[in-house]
Amino acid sequence: MVQLSDKNIGVNKSTSQLRARRIGVETQHEHVVFMREDCHVCKSEGFSVPARVLLTRGIKTQTARLMHVKNGLLENGEIGLAEITWQALDAHEGGHIGVSHPQPLASFHQVRGKVYGKRLDAASASAIIEDIVAKRYSDVELAAFITACSARALNHDEIVALTHAMVQSGDQLSWGRQPIVDKHCVGGLPGNRTTPIVVAIVAAAGLIIPKTSSRAITSPAGTADTMETLAPVSLSVEQMQRVVKAEGGCIAWGGAVRLSPADDTLIRVERALDLDSEGQLIASVLSKKIAAGSTHVVIDIPVGPTAKVRSTQKAEHLAKSLTAVANTFGLKTSIIISDGLQPVGRGIGPALEARDVLAVLQNKTDAPQDLRSRSILLAGAILELGELAHVGAGIRLAEEVLENGNAWTKFQRICAAQGGMREPPTAPHTFTVEAEHAAQVLEIDNRKLAKAAKLAGAPDAKAAGITMHVRLGDVLTSGQPVFTLHTESLGEMDYAREYVNSNPDIIKFAVVT
Amino acid sequence: MVQLSDKNIGVNKSTSQLRARRIGVETQHEHVVFMREDCHVCKSEGFSVPARVLLTRGIKTQTARLMHVKNGLLENGEIGLAEITWQALDAHEGGHIGVSHPQPLASFHQVRGKVYGKRLDAASASAIIEDIVAKRYSDVELAAFITACSARALNHDEIVALTHAMVQSGDQLSWGRQPIVDKHCVGGLPGNRTTPIVVAIVAAAGLIIPKTSSRAITSPAGTADTMETLAPVSLSVEQMQRVVKAEGGCIAWGGAVRLSPADDTLIRVERALDLDSEGQLIASVLSKKIAAGSTHVVIDIPVGPTAKVRSTQKAEHLAKSLTAVANTFGLKTSIIISDGLQPVGRGIGPALEARDVLAVLQNKTDAPQDLRSRSILLAGAILELGELAHVGAGIRLAEEVLENGNAWTKFQRICAAQGGMREPPTAPHTFTVEAEHAAQVLEIDNRKLAKAAKLAGAPDAKAAGITMHVRLGDVLTSGQPVFTLHTESLGEMDYAREYVNSNPDIIKFAVVT
Repeated sequence: MVQLSDKNIGVNKSTSQLRARRIGVETQHEHVVFMREDCHVCKSEGFSVPARVLLTRGIKTQTARLMHVKNGLLENGEIGLAEITWQALDAHEGGHIGVSHPQPLASFHQVRGKVYGKRLDAASASAIIEDIVAKRYSDVELAAFITACSARALNHDEIVALTHAMVQSGDQLSWGRQPIVDKHCVGGLPGNRTTPIVVAIVAAAGLIIPKTSSRAITSPAGTADTMETLAPVSLSVEQMQRVVKAEGGCIAWGGAVRLSPADDTLIRVERALDLDSEGQLIASVLSKKIAAGSTHVVIDIPVGPTAKVRSTQKAEHLAKSLTAVANTFGLKTSIIISDGLQPVGRGIGPALEARDVLAVLQNKTDAPQDLRSRSILLAGAILELGELAHVGAGIRLAEEVLENGNAWTKFQRICAAQGGMREPPTAPHTFTVEAEHAAQVLEIDNRKLAKAAKLAGAPDAKAAGITMHVRLGDVLTSGQPVFTLHTESLGEMDYAREYVNSNPDIIKFAVVT
Repeated sequence: MVQLSDKNIGVNKSTSQLRARRIGVETQHEHVVFMREDCHVCKSEGFSVPARVLLTRGIKTQTARLMHVKNGLLENGEIGLAEITWQALDAHEGGHIGVSHPQPLASFHQVRGKVYGKRLDAASASAIIEDIVAKRYSDVELAAFITACSARALNHDEIVALTHAMVQSGDQLSWGRQPIVDKHCVGGLPGNRTTPIVVAIVAAAGLIIPKTSSRAITSPAGTADTMETLAPVSLSVEQMQRVVKAEGGCIAWGGAVRLSPADDTLIRVERALDLDSEGQLIASVLSKKIAAGSTHVVIDIPVGPTAKVRSTQKAEHLAKSLTAVANTFGLKTSIIISDGLQPVGRGIGPALEARDVLAVLQNKTDAPQDLRSRSILLAGAILELGELAHVGAGIRLAEEVLENGNAWTKFQRICAAQGGMREPPTAPHTFTVEAEHAAQVLEIDNRKLAKAAKLAGAPDAKAAGITMHVRLGDVLTSGQPVFTLHTESLGEMDYAREYVNSNPDIIKFAVVT
C-alpha cells in the first residue's frame, strides 16, 4: 500500500481564541456554548448549528454543543458559556477560550454496533464509559446508548464488562478490612425508605456500612434526596471515611464521591426517558457497591404489578443475573424478593419519607409498621450475611438494636458527623382527596401515585409529595381521607390535582353496601 | 368503584403570562425558551431545569425545553424565545406568552413499549408521528424512538402502520391522472447524483415526474442540496404543481412541501446518530412517494462493502420488504440492485456533484461515464414501468433523449420554471492528495470518503467536498493526483486534512513494481 504524499503531513492545527463571557444559562448537565453567527471563528472553522465544538483553556478541555446567536447578546470575539461549562473550564470573565473541532466520537461506533446486535466487549464498554464520564456524549447519543441496552438485553459478559468499566471510571474506596456490608433496593415502591433505618441498626450493632445512595431516577425520591432533608449528604471521600471511621456507617450521596460517575450521567437521561434496562440496572447497582469497597451486599427486590419488577419470575431472573455478576467480582450477595404491592410507610417525597424514618427510629407508637418490619428484615439479613448473627437470628438482633434506642442514637450521631442533623421542610400547600362513598381499598397503582407525587414537585421540591391515609384492604367511610397532596407552589398543586382527577384509578375501591 | 370526591373537580388551571423577548438564539430544530430562575412563573408553577413547558399565544401553542438564566440577560417578567420558537408562535417583542405545564407525552408510552419488544400498531404509530410533527418530542425522545426501531427491526405490519401515519401527517398531492412516476436511490454512494438527469430524461420523454428529494441524512450531499446550487428547490405545493404542469417534472425539496413532515424531524436526529433502520427507511421513502401522489416508482439499491447496503442478500431483503409495503398501498415498484463499490461521478459535495450533472446533461466528452450510464439505466427502467417503452427498450429511449439534447433543454426549462438556473459555487481552498509511489487503486472506502467530505464542510458548505481523480483499477504514477479536498474555510481544510492523514486506508493501493 502506498502512503499518501508527505505533503499531507504537518497540517497547521489552528485553535481559534475567543473571550469568555458568563451568560448565566443553566443547562443542568449538558455543556452548551453560544457564539455569534457572524463570528470570525464560526466562519474560519466552518461551525454551523448543530455542531459540537472542543473548548480549551490551559490544560482543561471540554466538548460542548454550539448554539448560534444572532443579535447583540455577545460582542464580536466573545463566546458565551453555560454555567456547567464555565465551571468545567474554570473560566474567568474575558479570559481566552480556544475553540476547535473535536475528534469524532470513536466509541459511538460501538454503540451503533450494539444497536444492530453486536455484543459489547470489555474494550467497547471501557471506551463508551470513558467518553461518557468525560461528558463527550451529547444527550441524544446517551439516549441511543440507553435505548440500545434496553432493546437489546445485555448478557452476563456484557454486564460484567459494563460494571468493570463503570468501576474503573471513578474513585474506588478501600477500607483495609472485611466485611464491609451494604444494601440496595431495586425500587419502584414509593416511600420505601428503609436505608437510613437499616444503616443505623447495622452500624449500631457493630458492622461497617459505608452507604452511598443515589438521587431519584424515575421515582419521587431517592434515598439521597430523603436523607438530605435530615443531614448533608454531599460528602467528599475524606469526609465519608471520617464519618465511617467514627460511627461505622454513613448515608452519603454517591454522586459527590465520584463512585461510578458515569452512572449519574446515564441516570439523568434514563429519568427523562423513563427507561431502565436490567443490564444497566445491575451494572449501576454493583459498580457503585464494588467502587465503595463493599464485600457483602443484601439486595431487596420488591415485586408487584406496578412495582419496578412486576413478577416473581422477573425478580428471580434479575436475582440470578445479579448474583452471577456479583460473584465474578468476588462480591457476596443475599437477595430478598419482597412484597411490592403498595407504597411503604405513609410519605411519598423526600421530606415526607424522612418523617416516616424518624418515627420508626424513635419507636413512636404511630410509626408505619410496614416500614419498620421491612427495615428489620433487611437489617437482619445484613447482620447474618456479615456474620454478626447466626442464620435465623438476624431479625431478632436487628429488632433489639432498634427497640433499645441504640439505632436512634447511632442515626443522630451519623447525622451529626455528616454535618449536623436538621428538620425536614413542610409544604405550604396541601389538598386531601376523600372517599365519596363507603368503600374498601382494592388496588393501589404505585406508578400513578409516583407520577402524582412527581407532578406535585418531588423530588426537586423537597417538601412536596403525597401522604397516604389508606392501605390495601382498609374499609373507608364516606368523606374519609384517602391521600393528601403536598406542594411548594400553587402551579404544582393545580397540575397534580388535574392528574389525580383524570386518573381516578390511582386507587381502586370495592363499594361497601 | 368510588369516584374521588367532588372537591377534586374545578381545579383552577392557571396559565402564567410573561413578556416575549427575541434573544436571537439559533437552536436549529429544537424549541427552547429561557426564563429567569427567580421568575415568579418558575416559582409559582414549580418549573425546574430540565423541564418542558407549554407556551401559548392566542390559538398557537408550542412545547419547548426550558433553560434557566441567572443574571441580567432577561428583565423580570420576560421570557426569551429561540428563533424557531419565536416563529412558531408568531411572537412579537413584549407580547404576552402564556406558560404552563404541558400534558405528559402519552405517545412516548408506545415508544417505551417498542423498546421492550411490543409491536407498533396503527394507533401507536399515528399517535407517535402526530406528536413528532407537532414538535412535542424532545431530541432525546426522538433518539430513543429511532434507536428502538433500529434495535427492534420493524415487521411488515409495523412498517405499513408507520408509512400510513407518515403519509397522513402532512400534505398529500393529487395529479388526477396515471402514471405518476418517481425514483429513489437508497444511497450510501458518494456522488451518486442521478436524479436531476433522470428527471430531465423522463420528463423530456413525456412522463409526469413530480420529484421531491431530501437533503443529506448522513451523506455529504442530498439531491436537494445539490439541486439547490443549480436552481431554487424550496417550492410550495402550488409552485411545484405549476412547474410540473408546465414541464412534466420538477426537482423540489420535500421538506418545503410538508410531504411526510415527520421525516424531516426524524432525519435530523438520525443524522446526528448516524443510524438508519430498514423499517424507518422504507416508511420514509414510501411515505414521501405516496404523499406526492406517485403511482409507479423505480428504486435503486447500490450494494457494496462500504455502501449503505453491504450485501446482495441484504439488498434482496430490503427489496422484498419495500415491494410488499408498496403493494399494500397500491404503489407499483421496480427495484434495481446496482453496483455500489465506489463513488459515482467525480464530485462529492453539493456544487461538485452539480458540475458532474451538468457535464452529463450537456453531453460533454469528459462527462463521468459511470454517472451517465447509471442515469440511463434508471431512466430506462422508469420509461418501461410507466409504459412509455416496451420492456427492454427503455434504455435505448433514455439514451436517445439524452444524446439529442432534449434532456438538457428540459433541465434548463425546469430550472427556469423553479425560479431560475444558476451557477454552482466554487470553493476558495483546495488541497490535492497525491500518490507517493506508482500504484494500482484496489479499494475505495465510501464511508471514510464521505466522512472526509463532511469534515470539509459538505453539505452545509455548498462548494465544499472532494473531487476524485481515480477509479478502481486505475494505475497511478508517483505524484499523480488521487483526490482533491475543497473547503470554504481554512479551519475545515485543517480538519479534513487531519482526518485524511490519520486514515490512509481511505483508498487502498497495490504497489506496482
